[in-house]
Amino acid sequence: MSDHPDTTVGPTPAHEPPYYAVVFTSVRRPDEDADDYRRTAARLSRLVRDIPGFLGEDFAHSPAPGGLAISVAYFRDLEGIRRWRDHPEHLDAKRRGRERWYERYVIHIARVEHSHAFGGPA
Amino acid sequence: MSDHPDTTVGPTPAHEPPYYAVVFTSVRRPDEDADDYRRTAARLSRLVRDIPGFLGEDFAHSPAPGGLAISVAYFRDLEGIRRWRDHPEHLDAKRRGRERWYERYVIHIARVEHSHAFGGPA
Repeated sequence: MSDHPDTTVGPTPAHEPPYYAVVFTSVRRPDEDADDYRRTAARLSRLVRDIPGFLGEDFAHSPAPGGLAISVAYFRDLEGIRRWRDHPEHLDAKRRGRERWYERYVIHIARVEHSHAFGGPA
Repeated sequence: MSDHPDTTVGPTPAHEPPYYAVVFTSVRRPDEDADDYRRTAARLSRLVRDIPGFLGEDFAHSPAPGGLAISVAYFRDLEGIRRWRDHPEHLDAKRRGRERWYERYVIHIARVEHSHAFGGPA
């Protein structure tokens, strides 16, 4: 089972470029506090919707031990990314993430130059 | 269980920007041919490594019905993305993907401007 509220929603539609993607790829620790992680992820997923320029978020998590989780959040501009980066609850969650949940992660902030969709309401 | 050979490897390290990310977010059909899909995914995952400028690929797939799959492939430049886009076996797989496997997908091609890593050998 997934541990993220949005797994069955999406994918986020293609938007008119340019826009920005924040790719967050992570491996969690085996001894993490999963309940606290889930609560925090659900809370952040609600909070980010209030950031001006937020376009959507996609999430996938392979369940195998050591499996990757990938979240991709889309924003219209870098200002939205900065606001989200500096949001107090997000800052606190990132600190707890480094202390408790993540074995490792990589973040890529990228300017989307092309996008297209197949099928569905995109 | 995962259906992709690379799920327990990664994440791809942060590289020196600029580089490019191809984000492929998909929902598969419930009646897909899973064996053919898996074979093709494994074959493509080997082929892409021979593309000049290929930097790595991360994959995650939430197992719930309707769960998203996200793959992110990283390339040094757009020329590598074009070569991969036009690779004959990749073209054939994309055609079969639209005909057989995918209910919908969205592709975002993005220029990575910032990246950083926490933990692990990155």
